[in-house]
Amino acid sequence: MFFASDNGGPAAPEVIEAIAKANSGIAMPYGADPIMDEVRSQIRELFEAPGAEVYLVATGTAANALGLACLVQPWQTVYCHRNAHIEEDECGAPEFYTGGSKLTLLDGADAKIAPESLSHAISHTARAGVHNVQKGALSLTNATEAGAVYTPQEVAALCDIAKKADIPCHMDGARFSNALVRLGCTPAELTWKAGIDVLSFGGTKNGLLGVEAVILFNPDLAWEFELRRKRGGHLFSKHRFLSAQMQAYLADDLWHRLAAQANRAADRLAKGILQIPGAALLHPVEANAVFAAWPRKGHRIAQQSGAKYYHWPFDQPLEGPDEAPISARLVCNWSTTDAEIDQFLTLIA
Amino acid sequence: MFFASDNGGPAAPEVIEAIAKANSGIAMPYGADPIMDEVRSQIRELFEAPGAEVYLVATGTAANALGLACLVQPWQTVYCHRNAHIEEDECGAPEFYTGGSKLTLLDGADAKIAPESLSHAISHTARAGVHNVQKGALSLTNATEAGAVYTPQEVAALCDIAKKADIPCHMDGARFSNALVRLGCTPAELTWKAGIDVLSFGGTKNGLLGVEAVILFNPDLAWEFELRRKRGGHLFSKHRFLSAQMQAYLADDLWHRLAAQANRAADRLAKGILQIPGAALLHPVEANAVFAAWPRKGHRIAQQSGAKYYHWPFDQPLEGPDEAPISARLVCNWSTTDAEIDQFLTLIA
Amino acid sequence: MFFASDNGGPAAPEVIEAIAKANSGIAMPYGADPIMDEVRSQIRELFEAPGAEVYLVATGTAANALGLACLVQPWQTVYCHRNAHIEEDECGAPEFYTGGSKLTLLDGADAKIAPESLSHAISHTARAGVHNVQKGALSLTNATEAGAVYTPQEVAALCDIAKKADIPCHMDGARFSNALVRLGCTPAELTWKAGIDVLSFGGTKNGLLGVEAVILFNPDLAWEFELRRKRGGHLFSKHRFLSAQMQAYLADDLWHRLAAQANRAADRLAKGILQIPGAALLHPVEANAVFAAWPRKGHRIAQQSGAKYYHWPFDQPLEGPDEAPISARLVCNWSTTDAEIDQFLTLIA
Amino acid sequence: MFFASDNGGPAAPEVIEAIAKANSGIAMPYGADPIMDEVRSQIRELFEAPGAEVYLVATGTAANALGLACLVQPWQTVYCHRNAHIEEDECGAPEFYTGGSKLTLLDGADAKIAPESLSHAISHTARAGVHNVQKGALSLTNATEAGAVYTPQEVAALCDIAKKADIPCHMDGARFSNALVRLGCTPAELTWKAGIDVLSFGGTKNGLLGVEAVILFNPDLAWEFELRRKRGGHLFSKHRFLSAQMQAYLADDLWHRLAAQANRAADRLAKGILQIPGAALLHPVEANAVFAAWPRKGHRIAQQSGAKYYHWPFDQPLEGPDEAPISARLVCNWSTTDAEIDQFLTLIA
Repeated sequence: MFFASDNGGPAAPEVIEAIAKANSGIAMPYGADPIMDEVRSQIRELFEAPGAEVYLVATGTAANALGLACLVQPWQTVYCHRNAHIEEDECGAPEFYTGGSKLTLLDGADAKIAPESLSHAISHTARAGVHNVQKGALSLTNATEAGAVYTPQEVAALCDIAKKADIPCHMDGARFSNALVRLGCTPAELTWKAGIDVLSFGGTKNGLLGVEAVILFNPDLAWEFELRRKRGGHLFSKHRFLSAQMQAYLADDLWHRLAAQANRAADRLAKGILQIPGAALLHPVEANAVFAAWPRKGHRIAQQSGAKYYHWPFDQPLEGPDEAPISARLVCNWSTTDAEIDQFLTLIA
Repeated sequence: MFFASDNGGPAAPEVIEAIAKANSGIAMPYGADPIMDEVRSQIRELFEAPGAEVYLVATGTAANALGLACLVQPWQTVYCHRNAHIEEDECGAPEFYTGGSKLTLLDGADAKIAPESLSHAISHTARAGVHNVQKGALSLTNATEAGAVYTPQEVAALCDIAKKADIPCHMDGARFSNALVRLGCTPAELTWKAGIDVLSFGGTKNGLLGVEAVILFNPDLAWEFELRRKRGGHLFSKHRFLSAQMQAYLADDLWHRLAAQANRAADRLAKGILQIPGAALLHPVEANAVFAAWPRKGHRIAQQSGAKYYHWPFDQPLEGPDEAPISARLVCNWSTTDAEIDQFLTLIA
Repeated sequence: MFFASDNGGPAAPEVIEAIAKANSGIAMPYGADPIMDEVRSQIRELFEAPGAEVYLVATGTAANALGLACLVQPWQTVYCHRNAHIEEDECGAPEFYTGGSKLTLLDGADAKIAPESLSHAISHTARAGVHNVQKGALSLTNATEAGAVYTPQEVAALCDIAKKADIPCHMDGARFSNALVRLGCTPAELTWKAGIDVLSFGGTKNGLLGVEAVILFNPDLAWEFELRRKRGGHLFSKHRFLSAQMQAYLADDLWHRLAAQANRAADRLAKGILQIPGAALLHPVEANAVFAAWPRKGHRIAQQSGAKYYHWPFDQPLEGPDEAPISARLVCNWSTTDAEIDQFLTLIA
Repeated sequence: MFFASDNGGPAAPEVIEAIAKANSGIAMPYGADPIMDEVRSQIRELFEAPGAEVYLVATGTAANALGLACLVQPWQTVYCHRNAHIEEDECGAPEFYTGGSKLTLLDGADAKIAPESLSHAISHTARAGVHNVQKGALSLTNATEAGAVYTPQEVAALCDIAKKADIPCHMDGARFSNALVRLGCTPAELTWKAGIDVLSFGGTKNGLLGVEAVILFNPDLAWEFELRRKRGGHLFSKHRFLSAQMQAYLADDLWHRLAAQANRAADRLAKGILQIPGAALLHPVEANAVFAAWPRKGHRIAQQSGAKYYHWPFDQPLEGPDEAPISARLVCNWSTTDAEIDQFLTLIA
């Protein structure tokens, strides 16, 4: 009963096998391995983007920070939701990699940027010319930190606002697969067709050991990205072991199957929670996370039985009567089983 | 016949197995996995350093840059050999992570810093007070970029000079195992007993997929290191897969066996080359690399047969008579076989 | 009728004379001039702080950014009001000088930080440990960007909250003189006695050509400040010309007289505006700025007659009936005359 | 008898007068003052560069660091002489402003870059592609730190080498006036006609209180420069006081007269020293500095009489017999009189 994060789960067996298989003889280092050629082709085909450039790094923070650094100057700002991972969970990595850019924090329900919040922020940027930080990049997270998803139309609406102000667009897709599975659209529709210039396409939270692909739909950024990746210490010498993970992830739609499993688990969990008297969802369940409140007693019993998850928000009062609701974040991963969900539901009910 | 670099070789099978074994069930992320506890104990024992703090990252550049950043301020300088990896092969990662420190380049044969070069540089640092960059850290590479090793006495002599000027000491040990195997001393003798404060203990070039341990013999630096690692995007969520590699590397002296194999291969190669008329070594062969010159004709034949290695230096003239010597760098790895060495020797002879 | 900013006004004649007087013969460069010794003594006496270190720079942005950089690490955050100069008007200079610190934006009326906003922000900082930006420094602006002042008690209350969380305190005192004149307290009461560690003591907006003193009540920061100032290009070789300005400013309470003149001008202006039917103040008038609204017709007539000032906020609708109020920022400086105020009041009435 | 530096001397009276004159009534801040318009025209005319953009800052370090930052990326290197001011005397300001660029140190007599040293360095840059720091900018100092000057032909030869490798060219002209006076060429011939893209045109060492003009012969860099200047805290609010200095400097060829005076003083000094038995010059005297050796006894007597200058190099042995030569750096400024030179010569003879 582990719902603390999707990064506590194991890697998919297909990925471990791919690593073992890649471990044969000599391979050219630093991304010149033939498996990387295959990965590049797979991604270009999957995203219908024959001109895109593709690079692999091992962490989501690196993927986001390096991608953003290619889009903004140090004296510019990144527009993002105030609950975005780049704001809340990366210890200032975007500021580090960009050379000190600001992050302008936007509002919106379910950790989705409200278009009017973006418009307002843009119209207030650089209003005193050289005295102000300038317009930089827009960064969306899909699926969001609240487990919601942007539709292609919603992405396009935000990118439109940005593009009219000459602002390039980045998507943090640490859980892109979960969003895509829910939406049923194509990867292209959710990204470059909607205006996204750079995507962090996550693998780590969805069954890899640690690989994220940075997809540059604007290939002009490629050489700068390569230099920033190297300078950041994120270029792997034995790169084949990153390539092999991503190759297996893309082969036979493994990424899709794993994300679908995690999403289904979240649905089952949410459905079960809602049957508890006094329970409620805090956010719609659209990816692999459930934000819900249920009576305090259920929390106590579940935790005593070893269930792992975080109270959310972290600073709510935990004392009170048994029937007082306490809210929590529950994240499923591809390996979450129906059995552990049902066991958990039984405990909290 | 691949001698281009030790990073073209495969990982050791024991390491792949350890990854597969670690891939079971849930593990706490970000270094809180139990395998990391074991790694910490192994390293403290191996280095006879019960108070040392140990962190894992995936690349040597990250290990060096993060370690140095904990030792120097942006307005200070790092003393290193002019052929050091941090100067020549990291695209400015030390400058990036330190916030713009300078590297003061020192001289010495075989890419080893000559003590008088260090003394001279220190005495010339900050001679005009606030107008100058200040004294920062010393960084040694062992084994060096020229395949030579510093003895514990040589390390101590340099650290002594540094310590007298309040300068902390860093060792880039990407090939520390190769040096240690050659020297037959203890890890403690080659590091903290000689004055080293921070060690990058390499695994990637010696049989891992991509893991380096940063060992802080001065544990006061620990929290800053953790923050810098996270901010640099080098903290792995599924950290168990780094831990597992390092655990296997340290178990049963695997690291020692692999380095010994690579060193033996280099010895065999050097011995063979020296039997070619007109051949000569450029540097002593003390680790797993051979820098040697032999007649041009031998190069032509070997390369036509598919041997991979770099001419060294890169800008020597390659035209000339068959008997004119051309020099090259040949790097062996743990998987280099006697057969491929002998085949290569036959071709170049 | 210039109310656009206090930086459009001239320097005080005493200051020009002091510069001319300092321009005689040889003077040691870089702050080793004897006038700087006098300035140091003057400030230590004025602030009752015999151990304070004092440095001069030429701009307020430099003073703030250098001071903050000595208080925070790159992975920490600066708590400030969302309308603070360091957030809104310095093009990211704090981010640049700190190496990429974040600014956490706080709320409160009249651009004064509300204590509960500070407490809340501190309690939410670093709640996920290494994954988050850490607690850095508090920065107050006194007088504020809205022309209000913090009393010594209010400063102390905020510094108290900060100090309990080990957070050092910075004051942007670009208009410190204006605040002090209004409050009638001592400089010590408004700064170190209330918990301030570093003060930017402004001169430029109050009659100098361009000098701000950075006062380090914690002298341990001195050497780092000196290195950062030099590295930032803010150490003047012909430093005597900065020293001379500050010496004259402090002699015979010139700073106090000039600030009192500017404050009196603002008071007269505010009093006059409030007699206009339909006029109102947006903020209390406690320093040298007036934020007020009055009927649109008055704006039109004043502007046609050449009055200079900014509509505030910048994005309010300017069209409408003659009697519709439009709000504006009017800043007085030491040279603002009663005559021009009265002329302006006549026009807008 | 002050020869320690040209920055110990006073400002020219014309400059003080210009400041006093500028101190009248209101002036638009931040460079929008009408005097700045005049300065821009003066410089465009003097340099025959109608399209050039011109900005003022207060220190030479700021001028150099901001100018270079517009020319290089953080992962690139600046080619400069190993005795350049940007390497030796700016506490790492170029590294700070560029975001961590490297400085590649070149050789050559009299602190002038030897063309072959530049060619060699360029050919060795980025030889391993992404693993290396990349080609950035060339920076020349004219007059050099050794008091020598580059002719227009020499500048052109170096810029040519750079331009063939797509490397832009910067000139540190802290003593540009001294060089120009010696050479008798036009400002255009020594700069953009020879390939210079950005010039730091110094005033501080030559009679101003503290102003340097940064001249962007490539105006595409203008907006970036403005943002970097503001972000660095180098944009003056009461900018008219910088403008007034530069305006007076350029009016009636004041800059030329002052530099000619300083150069003549250096010539007189050098001529006198050479008449002392055992004396010798270390470098040709081509600007306002004399590097010379003369017997130890002369040093002792001069210093006892209060003469101020630096032994050069700083670490030569100062003990020895009376007739042993000791070398020194003697810098003249526009206010150095024949009388003090002759007094000094008498003492050291």
